[in-house]
Amino acid sequence: MNERILVVNGPNLSRLGRREPDLYGRESLEDVQRRLERRAQALNCQVTFVQSNHEGALIDAIQAAEETHEGIILNPGAYGHTSIALRDCLAGSPLPAVEVHLTNIHAREPFRHRLLTAPVCLGVVAGLGPLGYELALEALVAHVRSRHAS
Amino acid sequence: MNERILVVNGPNLSRLGRREPDLYGRESLEDVQRRLERRAQALNCQVTFVQSNHEGALIDAIQAAEETHEGIILNPGAYGHTSIALRDCLAGSPLPAVEVHLTNIHAREPFRHRLLTAPVCLGVVAGLGPLGYELALEALVAHVRSRHAS
Amino acid sequence: MNERILVVNGPNLSRLGRREPDLYGRESLEDVQRRLERRAQALNCQVTFVQSNHEGALIDAIQAAEETHEGIILNPGAYGHTSIALRDCLAGSPLPAVEVHLTNIHAREPFRHRLLTAPVCLGVVAGLGPLGYELALEALVAHVRSRHAS
Amino acid sequence: MNERILVVNGPNLSRLGRREPDLYGRESLEDVQRRLERRAQALNCQVTFVQSNHEGALIDAIQAAEETHEGIILNPGAYGHTSIALRDCLAGSPLPAVEVHLTNIHAREPFRHRLLTAPVCLGVVAGLGPLGYELALEALVAHVRSRHAS
Amino acid sequence: MNERILVVNGPNLSRLGRREPDLYGRESLEDVQRRLERRAQALNCQVTFVQSNHEGALIDAIQAAEETHEGIILNPGAYGHTSIALRDCLAGSPLPAVEVHLTNIHAREPFRHRLLTAPVCLGVVAGLGPLGYELALEALVAHVRSRHAS
Amino acid sequence: MNERILVVNGPNLSRLGRREPDLYGRESLEDVQRRLERRAQALNCQVTFVQSNHEGALIDAIQAAEETHEGIILNPGAYGHTSIALRDCLAGSPLPAVEVHLTNIHAREPFRHRLLTAPVCLGVVAGLGPLGYELALEALVAHVRSRHAS
Amino acid sequence: MNERILVVNGPNLSRLGRREPDLYGRESLEDVQRRLERRAQALNCQVTFVQSNHEGALIDAIQAAEETHEGIILNPGAYGHTSIALRDCLAGSPLPAVEVHLTNIHAREPFRHRLLTAPVCLGVVAGLGPLGYELALEALVAHVRSRHAS
Amino acid sequence: MNERILVVNGPNLSRLGRREPDLYGRESLEDVQRRLERRAQALNCQVTFVQSNHEGALIDAIQAAEETHEGIILNPGAYGHTSIALRDCLAGSPLPAVEVHLTNIHAREPFRHRLLTAPVCLGVVAGLGPLGYELALEALVAHVRSRHAS
Amino acid sequence: MNERILVVNGPNLSRLGRREPDLYGRESLEDVQRRLERRAQALNCQVTFVQSNHEGALIDAIQAAEETHEGIILNPGAYGHTSIALRDCLAGSPLPAVEVHLTNIHAREPFRHRLLTAPVCLGVVAGLGPLGYELALEALVAHVRSRHAS
Amino acid sequence: MNERILVVNGPNLSRLGRREPDLYGRESLEDVQRRLERRAQALNCQVTFVQSNHEGALIDAIQAAEETHEGIILNPGAYGHTSIALRDCLAGSPLPAVEVHLTNIHAREPFRHRLLTAPVCLGVVAGLGPLGYELALEALVAHVRSRHAS
Amino acid sequence: MNERILVVNGPNLSRLGRREPDLYGRESLEDVQRRLERRAQALNCQVTFVQSNHEGALIDAIQAAEETHEGIILNPGAYGHTSIALRDCLAGSPLPAVEVHLTNIHAREPFRHRLLTAPVCLGVVAGLGPLGYELALEALVAHVRSRHAS
Amino acid sequence: MNERILVVNGPNLSRLGRREPDLYGRESLEDVQRRLERRAQALNCQVTFVQSNHEGALIDAIQAAEETHEGIILNPGAYGHTSIALRDCLAGSPLPAVEVHLTNIHAREPFRHRLLTAPVCLGVVAGLGPLGYELALEALVAHVRSRHAS
Repeated sequence: MNERILVVNGPNLSRLGRREPDLYGRESLEDVQRRLERRAQALNCQVTFVQSNHEGALIDAIQAAEETHEGIILNPGAYGHTSIALRDCLAGSPLPAVEVHLTNIHAREPFRHRLLTAPVCLGVVAGLGPLGYELALEALVAHVRSRHAS
Repeated sequence: MNERILVVNGPNLSRLGRREPDLYGRESLEDVQRRLERRAQALNCQVTFVQSNHEGALIDAIQAAEETHEGIILNPGAYGHTSIALRDCLAGSPLPAVEVHLTNIHAREPFRHRLLTAPVCLGVVAGLGPLGYELALEALVAHVRSRHAS
Repeated sequence: MNERILVVNGPNLSRLGRREPDLYGRESLEDVQRRLERRAQALNCQVTFVQSNHEGALIDAIQAAEETHEGIILNPGAYGHTSIALRDCLAGSPLPAVEVHLTNIHAREPFRHRLLTAPVCLGVVAGLGPLGYELALEALVAHVRSRHAS
Repeated sequence: MNERILVVNGPNLSRLGRREPDLYGRESLEDVQRRLERRAQALNCQVTFVQSNHEGALIDAIQAAEETHEGIILNPGAYGHTSIALRDCLAGSPLPAVEVHLTNIHAREPFRHRLLTAPVCLGVVAGLGPLGYELALEALVAHVRSRHAS
Repeated sequence: MNERILVVNGPNLSRLGRREPDLYGRESLEDVQRRLERRAQALNCQVTFVQSNHEGALIDAIQAAEETHEGIILNPGAYGHTSIALRDCLAGSPLPAVEVHLTNIHAREPFRHRLLTAPVCLGVVAGLGPLGYELALEALVAHVRSRHAS
Repeated sequence: MNERILVVNGPNLSRLGRREPDLYGRESLEDVQRRLERRAQALNCQVTFVQSNHEGALIDAIQAAEETHEGIILNPGAYGHTSIALRDCLAGSPLPAVEVHLTNIHAREPFRHRLLTAPVCLGVVAGLGPLGYELALEALVAHVRSRHAS
Repeated sequence: MNERILVVNGPNLSRLGRREPDLYGRESLEDVQRRLERRAQALNCQVTFVQSNHEGALIDAIQAAEETHEGIILNPGAYGHTSIALRDCLAGSPLPAVEVHLTNIHAREPFRHRLLTAPVCLGVVAGLGPLGYELALEALVAHVRSRHAS
Repeated sequence: MNERILVVNGPNLSRLGRREPDLYGRESLEDVQRRLERRAQALNCQVTFVQSNHEGALIDAIQAAEETHEGIILNPGAYGHTSIALRDCLAGSPLPAVEVHLTNIHAREPFRHRLLTAPVCLGVVAGLGPLGYELALEALVAHVRSRHAS
Repeated sequence: MNERILVVNGPNLSRLGRREPDLYGRESLEDVQRRLERRAQALNCQVTFVQSNHEGALIDAIQAAEETHEGIILNPGAYGHTSIALRDCLAGSPLPAVEVHLTNIHAREPFRHRLLTAPVCLGVVAGLGPLGYELALEALVAHVRSRHAS
Repeated sequence: MNERILVVNGPNLSRLGRREPDLYGRESLEDVQRRLERRAQALNCQVTFVQSNHEGALIDAIQAAEETHEGIILNPGAYGHTSIALRDCLAGSPLPAVEVHLTNIHAREPFRHRLLTAPVCLGVVAGLGPLGYELALEALVAHVRSRHAS
Repeated sequence: MNERILVVNGPNLSRLGRREPDLYGRESLEDVQRRLERRAQALNCQVTFVQSNHEGALIDAIQAAEETHEGIILNPGAYGHTSIALRDCLAGSPLPAVEVHLTNIHAREPFRHRLLTAPVCLGVVAGLGPLGYELALEALVAHVRSRHAS
Repeated sequence: MNERILVVNGPNLSRLGRREPDLYGRESLEDVQRRLERRAQALNCQVTFVQSNHEGALIDAIQAAEETHEGIILNPGAYGHTSIALRDCLAGSPLPAVEVHLTNIHAREPFRHRLLTAPVCLGVVAGLGPLGYELALEALVAHVRSRHAS
């Protein structure tokens, strides 16, 4: 119980709520964080939020989490479509991860249909907006607990 | 409140629990249904389950739901990768839908990376096992209620 | 004279008039049938209408028509882009066929540019709405009569 | 009523009747013109015929028609598969167009499956021989009249 | 000994003997069945024949065979090139299968070179006509018996 | 000084201002010419304008310019995406060229992303409207003068 | 009766039984030969075995067989995926051929899905192990005899 | 004897000798014509030369030659890689044609490897410079005479 | 008037003048900056220069500019071909941007023909060397002023 | 004068005249050799003929020719489409080569459109039958003599 | 002698020894460094080690090395498959480089077969584990010395 | 200790030193052999050299080495890009292999980027000239000894 989950947010998510709101919604990343902290409390776990526009910084954060966290929620933003480095980082990490996309990437440009990080995650929640983070959290915590149980 | 949600299950899901359990898990479709009915009760809504191996029967069911339900959870199975007819059916339906895949399709054969029905759904939950149905239900109900609210 | 023509309608056409009317128009399949019956009368021939969402049922109908009809008008809907089985069925039938699409499929998504049934038909009428059925009927009847004449 | 329709014929159609008659039939372009004039009379409209082997001349003709005609029937011949210029010309014209192909291009070489002008036309009639021009005319005139009516 | 083998025949095979006989031969499916029953007797096993034009019905039949048969001979017809659902069904079945094609699919159109069900079968016999069913039966029975022996 | 620059305009540019004005703007080709003549005066050079819908005529003009001009501004229109002949003509000409596109071709259909003439020009100005011609002129004149200087 | 059949074995088959036995089985090529000779006796025909790692030597053998044999069983090994020369040799030979693969090539790497020699054979038996040679022999002999009969 | 051969030269060949001489050589088109006239005299036939930068003009010329010539030598220049219209023109002409390219197109850019007119010619001579015209003439005349002889 | 324009320079541009000078020229980035400041003065606006080899830093800079600048000139260097993150950043910014490339990217390796950031800019200036920055500035300022005027 | 030319013939050419005569003609390789010897005499040079079905033997022959011959005529047969080794051999040889194909490879299967050896030859003569060897000889001798002259 | 060599290590290499040890081995990056320092001593040169997960930081390091080092050993990790910026940086550097991969990238996923930095290096050592760094060092030092010698 | 290593050299390597020396260097294969023998002595092992232009002969040699050698150094030349047979031979051999290419194949034509034998080797050394053989030998011997040690 009381698992520590790292929530990693990729490029441009710092501007959530102001950036193309018709597409990404009007909640800011702080709103998402608060919403997720409430859910974490209900689920009896803790969340830490990081955001960076730097591919390398996201890798640094995931590597550092190995000692300090039990799981990862990753919204890789555009790096989910281009970064083999991020994929390798997740593949090499002992922590389970769930990928989140705010928008339905399958309904957007073809270059967003190529997913590089998703195949090394447990699964993906896409197109369900900020609620997607909460759903990913529930799934991730259930996974961690079932692993401990077995 | 008390929305009626149709849960549409595609080919081979009738054999869930017995079919390749290392891949698809050991819960049967009846187990999934029971689990989802409990969640529906908690969310104050109702779920109806249908399953067919026939592409045309899935289309029939979605068309018939228009008068009787407020939303659709669709696990299209393999038809999600091959059926433009199912896609057109969803695109032509007034009901919102969320797509569910038990396995992480992005980590499997390349022909499972092509998604034909997902682009006309709200979003996708993939790789999170039977819990994925529950998460999809929560998202779908929230969507229906927010639409009614606005 | 008085040729019997089978008009085969594929998936989702049962919902014509209600389904995406900006794209497919506001006439129902019954309206189309009535319009085509009037034209048939003028052309001195008869039309039979079938519609199914099931690929196999469309094949069943075309096979059964061999003894009872002299030609086929086929609106395969989405199956025209995915069904080799339907193509093989037409290729194996002694009846000539004309393919109809209500919308201009060439102006839509790339996956609608792949035509599997059209190469084994006499020709295609696309993008001309319900009138397209009438034009196909005129062409089909002329073809049948010219074959008989020669 | 009495709409003026420009019938634009592309490369090699001048040799219709003599060129590969097993493929293109034995009617000459003059025969097609006469057949179409009869139909035009029945439909209470007028047709003007132009033919050129020059891509630029076809564009010139379509541009000039803007002031003098109400619609275009275009048999682009091979330019329908290669000419973005012709496509842009049609896209920039206020006149509606229907594309005609004498043969079933979908049953021929793969390079004839790429249609560049068809997506900016109302629709396409293909594989129905010279009768295809008449059917296109009926559809075009109906379209022009319905636009005026609304 | 006395193994029960299900022989599953896909779309358009009901019309064998009448459909494109230069390509598919002049034996009817009943002839094939009789020929195979004679071979089965010689091999000391039993065969059950099913045929359907419906993808879903083929899946239903293979699922139902799990309790009642020891192996499957599958002529998937065109569905062998398009159906991931049928492939998943075979992959999830405990019964071994051998795929049969009457014609040499490798010598036909490129879209027949894509085999979706073959990779989850033991092997494929193609291009050897109705005799191919007999050869597949011999191989399948030998496989079942060697499995029991080991 | 006082260089003579040929400004070659390809298909459909004769209709500039009237053709899809939301895309191409409301200035006519004559307006563009006047604007460019003013800029030419400021830059102390001369411009000659030609326009044709004929690929061959554009090639004729560029070949003829060899003796009479010092540089070329080319708006090839759609021929920039399809004409190897125009490319060869530019590659074989001793005159330097700058390519101009009124619209941002990179933001349009994929077939406009293929550039055949651009690789044999000095460079490209795209998406900056009629001002693009002026910028191209400044760059071309600077290039010609620097070549003379060296 | 008593047809002479040449059995041509391509590269690496000399090492059968020792080479990757989990994939190719534990029977040596000599075992396969003996097994096939027994079947030949039962079928009242004769088999000659050749094996070479040299593409040219396989072609030499097939050319030389024209005068001395009535049919060919070909296991082209890897050359079946790469050799147009071998294909041309078979296409130019008057002898009918059946292609055999020990493994299910359709279930292996994509480069084994490209079949160059199979389209000019009667058919293919793949994935059925050494028994596949026997089945091919039965089909080949039946074909030769039916040709003689007609 | 004394056959009349039309030698059709495509875009940019008017500038032969001056255009990229390291690639295309230093002989002008007039030099080529003189060289070919000498060869024609030796072969007891006549040659007529045409050149145009206009695709349509090349088609006009080939169509007009039907009554007046017995064969065609075609150097299509860049149109050989892009013009389906020119291909259709040759396919529809009763005259045999041989295609010539001065340079070795197979050693140049990939877009020059696509040959659209060559498949409907007797054959191709490429990379052998102006002598290639002479060789093509010898082959074409031999073909015409052998046809007359048979 | 006096618009503040941010000039964003991507990877390796810090070494301009020393890096492959035959390709990129001998002016350093400081020279380019001075040249652009002079032009800015003439145009009555101000330019700020940033350069970084870090994709994330370029995104940081563009996001920060939203409050402080009125437009962006972007030379994305190689990130223009690989960075969806940079594209998303520009798409989400309210500031208009013009993309600059020093070299003619269309004449270089195929992987430089894929433009990811250009489609979300106003337009592109490529191949015109350091002068390209000045031309982009003129276009950008004109755009900003016309927007304010309307 | 009196140049020695090696004529290298690839796989299956040993059977010329008997192999698919409708495609390859009825002259044997010996006939071709005699025909070419006569032409060689007229051209005042000598030809040596080699043929092998072995890719390696063709390479051996070309390498050995370096000391003994002045040029190569190569009919690579199918190896022209598959052999990088043969290409490298030609690229590494100081002797000029002309490639010959009896048939019009551009009019045959797509896999014959890929030419690997042609780009390192002077040029190609294709589709002109046995006469093609003679034409290649004339071109090759002219090339060798012009090189000596310069 | 005593050359200074910069050893640049890309993303995730900081975790060597702990990250997927079955794939990447159990030596840490420090172990590799020590091993390489011993080899450097034997070769009479010096090595400097840098590692970063940031693409930009790797570019910064390579640019800074120009003044301080004589050669580069680069293990680009995943950036070797995605970074044109890193490629441009190496192409623009006067220092020679050798690329190292610990694993046999050619035996892994297809996206690892695309090498962007390798073409601008002297060569590549792949799949030979940590020893690969030593081999690359020997080759690099030999290259630097031979250059100085010539 | 004293391992016996077979060094297999593919097509055209017999001409090393004379063949395209700017690309492949001026050392002959005998020079390479001597250089490698010296290194073998230092490493306390033995090398045997074979070279053939025949794909089949390379396979023969590798198969024969199974009894007599402990490892293989393979420079497959062009067959490394085209030979699945050679790949299968290596995959079926119990001996470990290291692949060597003299040139940097990644910097050459795209058809040299496809590696068929490399994936079944331990690793690859490319672009480091004759020294590459020595480095491969060191790696191969280390591998063999570590395997014996474990």
